[in-house]
Amino acid sequence: MKIDLDNLDDLALGTAFISTGGGGDPYLYQLALEAVIEEKGPVSLIDPGDLDDDATIMSMGGVGAPMIGSEKLPNGLEGVYAIRRLEEYANVKADALIAAEIGGGNGLVPLITSLHTGIPVVDADGMGRAYPATQMETFSIYGISATPMSAVDEFGNGVVITASDSITAERIVRQVGLAMGGHCMAADHIMSGNDVKKYAIRNTVTLSTGLGAAVRGSRDLTELLAATGPLLVDAGYGAPVNLFEGKVIDVHREMIGGYDVGEFVIASFDGRQQMTINVQNEYLIAIVNGQCVATVPDLICVVDRETLLPITSERLRYGLRIGVIGIPAPALYKTPEAMSFTDPRAFGFDMDYTEMVVA
Amino acid sequence: MKIDLDNLDDLALGTAFISTGGGGDPYLYQLALEAVIEEKGPVSLIDPGDLDDDATIMSMGGVGAPMIGSEKLPNGLEGVYAIRRLEEYANVKADALIAAEIGGGNGLVPLITSLHTGIPVVDADGMGRAYPATQMETFSIYGISATPMSAVDEFGNGVVITASDSITAERIVRQVGLAMGGHCMAADHIMSGNDVKKYAIRNTVTLSTGLGAAVRGSRDLTELLAATGPLLVDAGYGAPVNLFEGKVIDVHREMIGGYDVGEFVIASFDGRQQMTINVQNEYLIAIVNGQCVATVPDLICVVDRETLLPITSERLRYGLRIGVIGIPAPALYKTPEAMSFTDPRAFGFDMDYTEMVVA
Repeated sequence: MKIDLDNLDDLALGTAFISTGGGGDPYLYQLALEAVIEEKGPVSLIDPGDLDDDATIMSMGGVGAPMIGSEKLPNGLEGVYAIRRLEEYANVKADALIAAEIGGGNGLVPLITSLHTGIPVVDADGMGRAYPATQMETFSIYGISATPMSAVDEFGNGVVITASDSITAERIVRQVGLAMGGHCMAADHIMSGNDVKKYAIRNTVTLSTGLGAAVRGSRDLTELLAATGPLLVDAGYGAPVNLFEGKVIDVHREMIGGYDVGEFVIASFDGRQQMTINVQNEYLIAIVNGQCVATVPDLICVVDRETLLPITSERLRYGLRIGVIGIPAPALYKTPEAMSFTDPRAFGFDMDYTEMVVA
Repeated sequence: MKIDLDNLDDLALGTAFISTGGGGDPYLYQLALEAVIEEKGPVSLIDPGDLDDDATIMSMGGVGAPMIGSEKLPNGLEGVYAIRRLEEYANVKADALIAAEIGGGNGLVPLITSLHTGIPVVDADGMGRAYPATQMETFSIYGISATPMSAVDEFGNGVVITASDSITAERIVRQVGLAMGGHCMAADHIMSGNDVKKYAIRNTVTLSTGLGAAVRGSRDLTELLAATGPLLVDAGYGAPVNLFEGKVIDVHREMIGGYDVGEFVIASFDGRQQMTINVQNEYLIAIVNGQCVATVPDLICVVDRETLLPITSERLRYGLRIGVIGIPAPALYKTPEAMSFTDPRAFGFDMDYTEMVVA
């Protein structure tokens, strides 16, 4: 699998679709990736199964509120600074890069960095979507230390963090991002090829490219579910379902502690039902008329009901007509360890995980 | 000069006196230093003139709002973690430690660290008082890079910061402190013995010990000014003056961006005059009935009018009867370079530096 100018649009669409609202709108990173592909050619992807067991892999991605990411232009070199700084600190060389999260612009970050550095990218990631915190990466959940972690700005100013656990590292890097204008680029989770084989969500770059093509090839929500279903199931997710359709009638959004935090209300077209979605960068919990119908770690994705284009959380606006799609999370997120870091209580909500309820 | 159990009280009193309100109340650090002196004996001080020109010196101190420092107990090892982390990153060994600022608890930090590590302390500091930001250290002002800078918490979690300039480093370390509960311990400004000779405010540990003895030996403000005057002038400051006496009638204080920010109003006992003092951790600007009477970089110090005990900014309370003392800053702070980092405009006030006005 290669990413070139022909399938870049599909990849960016797909990462936004599977982002569950976070990870940053891919648009700016898509432009940066397009520019560097034009200069240096396509990006080759390594299948995780082809990694040497003792290869050195680093995960990477931007940290901050998506609202900031849509206004603070990347120069495309942030990832290079982050990787070089982590390599220098840890005195190792990265044999391959992997996205901390495939969702949104962060799914494109390793590809840009790969073309600038010559370090290849693994066709996989550490979330299979986007989540708002480091400790929610499969790598952290299954015991890979998140630190040393580098975090840099667009000028190459930066820090290397060491911390006793991923939650502490997350707390520090979030504040570092605030000091850097609301967003920084991080590299972390130095791990082996064997670790990636065991703990990564596999082939999610390929999956996203397929999802993007499905978005573009579908004419309505029903066709979109039919087209994306086999791809998702094949990649280890559950089959996507239509959770709700309606019009956005209320948007609360604040930037708190380096996150976009909010609540959106969507009314059904017959006016009889309302869905509320709670957001921390990502869409976390969906409630219809007081009944919880989907929660993290399952995926809640939002698309424009007419164009089927995915809508990241910072772009959700009053009056948009949307479809809300639920996708059961992959098996690596259904274990008790993973649930303890990604269920509603891990986000501070006083509710348990609910199996997805289809209307 | 040695600091032992006999003169520790004087040192702590003196660092609070010369702190201009910031640097943190010395009380908790005094307890930590007392404990380690009891265990390991007195702290020897190196006169800056006795340093080898090519010795390696690191400056150090806590970063955060003083209000936090009065509630978050130090374990005394924070400085050890900070120095070891900086040594490891920069691959150098510290030959001596120096206080980033002599003012408040931060003046005691290198002494505690010295007894734990065996690394001696220079009888000098980088501010000759306390200031709220890294770029205000003489070392930064006169061209020593503030970074690499380590910043750690009480568990040894930490970061190493590299930045293009001191203001950027300050912005990052301030946020790191917030991530660590509002306060972190930093080590920075790796410099030579020759740099210390040129740029440090000299013999300020000795000076503070003398100032503390003067506070304890004086019975009123007049005696205090008479007793501290020769010590200050001998150390390169101007002679202290009585700027105001009165009762605190209004206290505004907020914690903003990792600083205590506020404004205090003091009424004269005859009710005819009011002094307003603007604060950012330290006392910055004093205005009497609309006329500016003292500004940074000159020192504005506050003492209890009855006991003569210095009052740091986080302890200033409604109803306290205080004396406000002005001390002209040392020559290293009167150059155009230094003024550009420490005059009222450097703190965001739309006013120029004013020579001290004595009523």
